[in-house]
Amino acid sequence: MASEERSVLEGIDHVGIAVTDLESAVAAYTQLCGAEPSHRERLDDDGVEVVMFDVGPSRIELLGATGSMSKIANFIRTRGPGLHHVAYATDDIDSTLGKVRAAGLRLIDEEPRTGIRNSRVAFLHPRSTGGVLTEIVEPAH
Amino acid sequence: MASEERSVLEGIDHVGIAVTDLESAVAAYTQLCGAEPSHRERLDDDGVEVVMFDVGPSRIELLGATGSMSKIANFIRTRGPGLHHVAYATDDIDSTLGKVRAAGLRLIDEEPRTGIRNSRVAFLHPRSTGGVLTEIVEPAH
Repeated sequence: MASEERSVLEGIDHVGIAVTDLESAVAAYTQLCGAEPSHRERLDDDGVEVVMFDVGPSRIELLGATGSMSKIANFIRTRGPGLHHVAYATDDIDSTLGKVRAAGLRLIDEEPRTGIRNSRVAFLHPRSTGGVLTEIVEPAH
Repeated sequence: MASEERSVLEGIDHVGIAVTDLESAVAAYTQLCGAEPSHRERLDDDGVEVVMFDVGPSRIELLGATGSMSKIANFIRTRGPGLHHVAYATDDIDSTLGKVRAAGLRLIDEEPRTGIRNSRVAFLHPRSTGGVLTEIVEPAH
């Protein structure tokens, strides 16, 4: 049982930031990071365009709404622009979800689903994690 | 000049999370991280108690207000509990601040000041960073 005690999270995979003006945020983070974005992807089903910056082993994801009905547009209307979620990396998302479920934390996704770059992802409810929308990511192997 | 182009940020040092009930958040993050907190510190001047969890090379900082006049209490009143700031690590905060200042990003701290564990820290204004209060940290060597 001792091995169960160690952390199952390997690090912060990324922080997601909801922005009102994607291109001006890209310009600012290009300056802050001292480097151009590493990836850009438009997820039409979610109404979001994602621009990623690498920062050491982690990433910054800038999230721009592609329409007024987008979840990101709705987030900005109710909370304002800024930090949207934090994602933690694990090498075994099924085990991690099992542990947090057993501990009584509330899940948004009961089972992992496919995320960006063929990762497996699941979200925890902010009510269980200090008001923070929290994502668990198992990167593609 | 080519070396100026590389990223000066080494990774996400920590995410700061403003919570209403520190001990219940500590219990939840102990489950999520699969480990007890690594550090706890009360900063009376700032009206905040900080509880840290290690997650790979980064940390989660839970921030609880120690009084109703605390900046954290004020943040929760106006924005609700949740993500408060993101901190990026650099090995040369003077150089990083010089670059972002030259790029036109707005600084809250024009000069680095002493942070937790004898680090040197400075905050950037959320208006320059997509609505996110952003901290630059040079850990103590």
